[in-house]
Formats: sequence, C-alpha cells, structure tokens
Amino acid sequence: MIISVIGNSSCDKDIYKIAEEVGKLIAEKGGVLITGGLGGVMEAASKGAKEAGGTTVGILPDFSKEDANRYVDIPITTGLSHARNVIIARSADALIAVSGGYGTLSEIAIALKLGKPVIGIKTWDNIEGIVNVNSPDKAIEKVLELIGR
Amino acid sequence: MIISVIGNSSCDKDIYKIAEEVGKLIAEKGGVLITGGLGGVMEAASKGAKEAGGTTVGILPDFSKEDANRYVDIPITTGLSHARNVIIARSADALIAVSGGYGTLSEIAIALKLGKPVIGIKTWDNIEGIVNVNSPDKAIEKVLELIGR
Amino acid sequence: MIISVIGNSSCDKDIYKIAEEVGKLIAEKGGVLITGGLGGVMEAASKGAKEAGGTTVGILPDFSKEDANRYVDIPITTGLSHARNVIIARSADALIAVSGGYGTLSEIAIALKLGKPVIGIKTWDNIEGIVNVNSPDKAIEKVLELIGR
Amino acid sequence: MIISVIGNSSCDKDIYKIAEEVGKLIAEKGGVLITGGLGGVMEAASKGAKEAGGTTVGILPDFSKEDANRYVDIPITTGLSHARNVIIARSADALIAVSGGYGTLSEIAIALKLGKPVIGIKTWDNIEGIVNVNSPDKAIEKVLELIGR
Repeated sequence: MIISVIGNSSCDKDIYKIAEEVGKLIAEKGGVLITGGLGGVMEAASKGAKEAGGTTVGILPDFSKEDANRYVDIPITTGLSHARNVIIARSADALIAVSGGYGTLSEIAIALKLGKPVIGIKTWDNIEGIVNVNSPDKAIEKVLELIGR
Repeated sequence: MIISVIGNSSCDKDIYKIAEEVGKLIAEKGGVLITGGLGGVMEAASKGAKEAGGTTVGILPDFSKEDANRYVDIPITTGLSHARNVIIARSADALIAVSGGYGTLSEIAIALKLGKPVIGIKTWDNIEGIVNVNSPDKAIEKVLELIGR
Repeated sequence: MIISVIGNSSCDKDIYKIAEEVGKLIAEKGGVLITGGLGGVMEAASKGAKEAGGTTVGILPDFSKEDANRYVDIPITTGLSHARNVIIARSADALIAVSGGYGTLSEIAIALKLGKPVIGIKTWDNIEGIVNVNSPDKAIEKVLELIGR
Repeated sequence: MIISVIGNSSCDKDIYKIAEEVGKLIAEKGGVLITGGLGGVMEAASKGAKEAGGTTVGILPDFSKEDANRYVDIPITTGLSHARNVIIARSADALIAVSGGYGTLSEIAIALKLGKPVIGIKTWDNIEGIVNVNSPDKAIEKVLELIGR
C-alpha cells in the first residue's frame, strides 16, 4: 500500500499536527508514504511515518537530495519542478490532502483524472470527487475502505 | 503572445462553438495557440485559430503525431501522458479554459501556481484565481488586459 | 516534416556555420525545425531556418521564454530541465546532430531507442545507429531518404 | 548512498549473474538501489539487493505498479515512458551500467552531463567518462572511491 500525503511546503502548527498524525497512521497500517519531500505538510507526514517505523519517499522537484526534509528515507530528485506532482499522484494507491494550495490542487486533479481515491482534510472542499473528512483517523479509514483493504 | 486553450477532448456543439470562437480571436490578435492537440475543445480552438490564419501548436500526451487533430500545425509528441499538461500551462502567457474536467483542472492549478492569468468560460467556477467570463470576446479582452497588451 | 537539430549551447564558428546551413536546408525543404531553443548549434540552426522562411520551435529546459534565442518563433517552456531532451527526440521525424556533448548524446540515444533516423556531422562517431556524414547537404539528403520523402 | 543499476530489460544468464552480484554488493554496503523496475538487469540487481537485505526502488515508465519485478520494494509509477530514465540518472549518487542498449546509453549520457560517476561492466566502452571495470567487486570499489565513501 502506497499512500501520498500532499499539502503545502509551509503550514501552521495545527495542520502540521494533523499531517503528522496522518503519516503515523499510514505507517502503522503498513503503508509506504510518498510526499513531495519538502517542508510543511510533507515534512510533518514524513515525521509521523518515520517515528512510527514506516518508510518515507520524497519525490523532489529539483536536483539536490539535500532539499529533502530529514524524515525522508528515499529522496528521488526528479528535476522536473511541478511536473513531479504528476508522479506523486500516479504512484499512490490513494492520496490524502491536508490543507494545500494550487500545487496540491494539481495533484488532486491528476489523481481524480486517474480514478484514484482522494481524501481531504481542511483542503479544497468544493471539488467533486474529493472525500472530505475531519480527522486523520477518518482519513485512514476511508483510504482503507476505498482501496479495498 | 502565446495563449493556451484548455478543455475536454470531447464536447457538445455549444462548447465547440465557443472554443472555436476563442481560437479565432486569439489568431486575430496575433497570438500563437497552444492546446493539448487532441479533439473536442482542443480541436475547436485549433480550427478557429487555423481558419483565421493563426499558428497552432499541439502538445500531445503520446508518441504519434497522427494523434493530433487536423488543425494542428506543429505537433509536439511528448510521450509524458498527463504530465504534458504542465508544459501547456508553463508555455502560455495566459490560459483560457472552456468547460473541462479534471485534466483541465490540473492545468488551471499549475498555471495559477505559476501566477499566470487563467480565464474561464463555463468551467470550474469555484476556484479562487480563475477569472470567469461568459463569452469568447470577454475572454480575449481579459487576456489582453492581464498580460498587458 | 519535423526535424530536430541538436548540439551544444555554445560552439565555434565552423560548427555554427554548419548548423546554420543545416537549418537553412531544412526550411528550404519545407520542414519545421525543432531545437532546444538555446544558443550555439540551436541558435545557428534556428537562424538558418528563419532566414530561409521556415518555422522554428524551441523546446526550452526552463520556465522563461526569454531564454530562447531570437530566431525561435515558438518557445515551449517545459521546466523539465534535461528531461526536455526526450521531447526533442520524440517530436522529430529525424534528428541531425551537429557536434555535441553528453546532452546531445542523450537525445541521440532516445531517438535511436525510438527507431528514429539520426544523422551526425562531426558528432559522436562511435555509436552504432548514427548515420555520419560530412556536410549539411549530405545530412538533408540522408534525412529525406530515411524518412521516405 | 543511492546507487542506480542500469541495463536492458532482458539479458542472458551471465549478465543477470553480474547484475545480481552488483545489487548484492550495493545492499551490503548500505546503499539504496534504484533501477527502472522492470526485468533483465533491473530485476537481477533488485534480486541481489533484496536478498542481501537492501531496499530497492523501481522507477517505472508506465502507470501500473504490477509492471515492477517482484524484488522491487517501492515502485514509483511515473507514466513518463523513457523520460523516467532522466529521474534514474538524477536520483543516484552514482550509476553502474551492466551491458545495456540505447535506453541505458541515455541514462549514462544524462548522468555524465550531471557530473555523476558512471561505472560500466560489459557496456558501452567507447564513451569518454564511463569508468569501465570487469567485475562487480571493482564496480563497487570504484563507486565508493568516486563518491568519497
């Protein structure tokens, strides 16, 4: 099971906490976590997953693996800039968006185009196709349900 | 001036007519038209531009230039599948969305992320940042205003 | 007919002259020229094609169309860095390499992988599959022969 | 330390054995293995690494993680076709080519362009910049030397 957590590269403490919890739950369910590898929500989810013993992958936009936050086990330096968003959407069995702006929206759109489940917490709430929930627990529950685990 | 017209690869007659008119106006203003090169809105806009004497580029998802609709002068076969959407967003000075689904939404999101003007006609109307208008004339007027022509 | 001319972004006068002549001949045969859009061989070929009345496309690695040399009609800003080389190889019916280093070699390799004709002038001469010739005239002659024009 | 092993998706037994040994040695040195995720050399290296307790990443050309050989822990489905070769070159601290054709050559070229060490075993032997060796042991030794471990 590969789950992507998507969101902004900077965020406030509440969002950080939510993303961290999401990452932790993914790892506890045995999932591999994919993020964009940078700060904010990506770091928080990676931290949560790492501290729960999970494996974390960062699909980075640029060329240097030093760009990855310190909770990324496997940095993939794509050099594709925002086009790496497409890979994040494609590689996941399901995506969980925590907050997020236009970059996150591009990942959501590609994932929905590909028919993948997209769960949202405090994110774009007016896009048909996103399953909006209000807690990390509910997000994981929905993911497991939608990918048939 | 390079303008992308984005939208679905199949569409009804009304949307086709709108997209064709948008393409025509872009060509009349001296703009180069970029689309995804396939059918529907992409074909309509290319037809409009071509018949008005403009130049049309198709940024295709796959490998064969035979995929391009017959109004595309310059087919660019990327082989990147949906990741080619990013190139369509990046290469334009402004984008005009005519109707459209998730693929179009991904292009809108990348364009807004990059700070490019996005004009919408009968498209996603609940995304902050899209300038929604209700006619091809208004769309071109807005494009010219926003890119400072 | 779409022909890519590939080579270094800086070059000496002799190579520049050769690439310029190659671009001119492509345009005279009615071909659209694709290059990487930057300086050196890419500029020379674009200059030759432009001055012979042809159409020139530049598939740029970064985000700004200002990066394009002034002979590029249609700048496509991919933001993919070297991954744009793949698009240059994929979009061409045939490629002509004029001199060139590792970037050029990556384009040659992708083109040969895709089964496209690759003609070389003063370029990598030890790669099976490249048709090495010693003049722009011979290069165009070979291109026309190999793509069946 | 992230090492890419590159080569054909089908190969004879001798090459398979070499690639398997290379993968094993990478894992024993604590390296993460990146390959293109398919068969042949990619499978062999992944098998060797996996059986030695290492972590294996497959950067796949298409959309389905079922394409990955069974020794890939983390399948990244890029949907970029051959453009995924660029990511394989970019993400590695060093690359080891075992045999290989044009696809492999494209990865070698991008890696050399980026200034990364490329070690070759029974591969393209006429490309300046490749450090050709004749055994897996020598390959790993060279990798460690060149990346300063």
